[in-house]
Amino acid sequence: MSDRLIPVPLPEQPYNIAVGAGALERLGALLTGPETPAKLGRKALLVSNPTIFRHYGDRALRSLQQAGFETRQLILPAGERYKTPATVLKIHDAALEMRLERSSLMVALGGGVIGDMTGFAAATWLRGIHVAQVPTSLLAMVDAAIGGKTGVNHPRGKNLIGAFHQPRLVLIDPEVLATLPVREFRSGMAEVIKYGVIWSRGLFEALEAAPRLDRQRGLDPALLTRILDESARAKAEVVSQDEKEGGLRAILNYGHTIGHAIESLTNYKLITHGEGVAIGMVAAGRIAVELGMWSAAECDRQDALIARCGLPTRIPAGVAVEAIIDSLGLDKKVKAGKVRFILPEGIGRVVITDQVPNEVIRSVLGGLLSEA
Amino acid sequence: MSDRLIPVPLPEQPYNIAVGAGALERLGALLTGPETPAKLGRKALLVSNPTIFRHYGDRALRSLQQAGFETRQLILPAGERYKTPATVLKIHDAALEMRLERSSLMVALGGGVIGDMTGFAAATWLRGIHVAQVPTSLLAMVDAAIGGKTGVNHPRGKNLIGAFHQPRLVLIDPEVLATLPVREFRSGMAEVIKYGVIWSRGLFEALEAAPRLDRQRGLDPALLTRILDESARAKAEVVSQDEKEGGLRAILNYGHTIGHAIESLTNYKLITHGEGVAIGMVAAGRIAVELGMWSAAECDRQDALIARCGLPTRIPAGVAVEAIIDSLGLDKKVKAGKVRFILPEGIGRVVITDQVPNEVIRSVLGGLLSEA
Repeated sequence: MSDRLIPVPLPEQPYNIAVGAGALERLGALLTGPETPAKLGRKALLVSNPTIFRHYGDRALRSLQQAGFETRQLILPAGERYKTPATVLKIHDAALEMRLERSSLMVALGGGVIGDMTGFAAATWLRGIHVAQVPTSLLAMVDAAIGGKTGVNHPRGKNLIGAFHQPRLVLIDPEVLATLPVREFRSGMAEVIKYGVIWSRGLFEALEAAPRLDRQRGLDPALLTRILDESARAKAEVVSQDEKEGGLRAILNYGHTIGHAIESLTNYKLITHGEGVAIGMVAAGRIAVELGMWSAAECDRQDALIARCGLPTRIPAGVAVEAIIDSLGLDKKVKAGKVRFILPEGIGRVVITDQVPNEVIRSVLGGLLSEA
Repeated sequence: MSDRLIPVPLPEQPYNIAVGAGALERLGALLTGPETPAKLGRKALLVSNPTIFRHYGDRALRSLQQAGFETRQLILPAGERYKTPATVLKIHDAALEMRLERSSLMVALGGGVIGDMTGFAAATWLRGIHVAQVPTSLLAMVDAAIGGKTGVNHPRGKNLIGAFHQPRLVLIDPEVLATLPVREFRSGMAEVIKYGVIWSRGLFEALEAAPRLDRQRGLDPALLTRILDESARAKAEVVSQDEKEGGLRAILNYGHTIGHAIESLTNYKLITHGEGVAIGMVAAGRIAVELGMWSAAECDRQDALIARCGLPTRIPAGVAVEAIIDSLGLDKKVKAGKVRFILPEGIGRVVITDQVPNEVIRSVLGGLLSEA
């Protein structure tokens, strides 16, 4: 069985994203074969969380060992609240115990939290060792694991502490989604729809043609692979054109400006990241329509797709418009005090602008209140 | 008054090292002028320690403010024992308080500890913001501030946690050396001699011609500027040819393999880093002579220069040869279990080798025991 390879042609160190059913069994082979251009040492520290490790840990370790890696594992508690500098120090302790060298490897087996923390620990151990990302949530597969963003939370803000550190391989195995909770699957679908709107009309229309989208069970395996492939490809294309978020990469934040604000206002407890992005995309789409940049018909198609994934399209009850407006001032993507929006001009095409009048934001948000 | 500019032509973001008496007064102007190719935002967080800040803080802040920067300062306790992840979090807290953005700047005003920590805090805040290095010790001027190595200590090893993060400007003002303790000055001279041996015969011979070298007072200002200029240039040349320590950069570790071992065995309390490097250079020189790679006459000239700087040339009493041999196994520069040495072939020319028999190391170290 062979995997699809998506090249990420970064100048310093190109790498591949391997997508394929059952690819986890080939982890070790992919890391030691031509799919991984970097030359890795023989030591690999696998970092995971209890649930994921119970399901997939043995498979990953066995594959690494069969390819000749000396392995150890570190199992960290699951959950965003552990995504802290203190947990990164635990990974560093394990790296020291195992005597990892500059050529050694960390393998992140898990969702975005494990991937972000392990990536950051690898970025900062001996000033940077290798890392392979093996995402196990849809969200991590199509977004977090690709592009080299790593980091942890500051008590007063998400992802404020981090580094850019590119993986040597990203391995995407759709089979591991079997155990993903449905709400997390839907959350990941928000990012998939995002790629359709910002980059790939083909992906968008493939989603529209699918009979159902609200749980992984209902999805045709071929469509699931296509979703993963095209989403990863979109992310890889954007990232390789703008590794350090100087310009183009900002389009990946479509839906995130208002999404983040709502997530933060509800203390990251009421809604998932993907749900925030879903609401943010609905808002951004309407802002674009309001400004005459996008057709209402296409915006409606986007909103319909979001709803079909079982994702929210309204601001949660209890969140006030003014609170959102206020919190936009704190967004880390703020440049010189202005709020930047990513707005669609067509399906598969967006622009970046900081010329959105506050009244438009206010009026669009007002129209999205749960009680409205 | 104009400063000498040493270009560091790194592909992603070239920058300059400015060397000049009184350059500190021009800090703000240098950061906003053509000397700094990067475009910086208007916020600058100055990080320093109490002593340095008392002497030079006002001058630095005034210069930044006159150039239009909004400034704040964070004064951290002095000393290697504070070079920890916890102190970096304090810098992050200050960054949050000040609402630093991606375009904002941190300014490290101090020795290697302040420079390493501030550089690492900048590397990891918002995944990387700008940093300017204003070294105030000789060691930091000729070594730590140049080349982008940043980091902090792990409880069980120095500099194990860190990142590569290039500064936007390095400002070297010889006048601030006036307040440097003599022992620290001498410690820095060890690295200066190192550049002579590994890279610049001209620098080496200029040092030989100086009437005295053991304190900054005795040094002709023109020679001091030449020392700073040539040392910074050597470091910049090596670093720009090998930004991430893939090969050539290893020559900067001349004298460091055994030096680190002795520093570590004496718990970083008995000798300074430069003193360790001095002893390490004496040892490496003799190993090279023993292996027939270097002439004994040139090795003696090196040792004489080290002694004239008031630096040690013998292993401190109480440190056993076998303890050094053992601890070499733990050096972070170990590659696949072998110990790499940098050995001179001539003044200004070294090679990298891992082919040094243990008996040779043992016998050379035996000859350097204090009681021998």
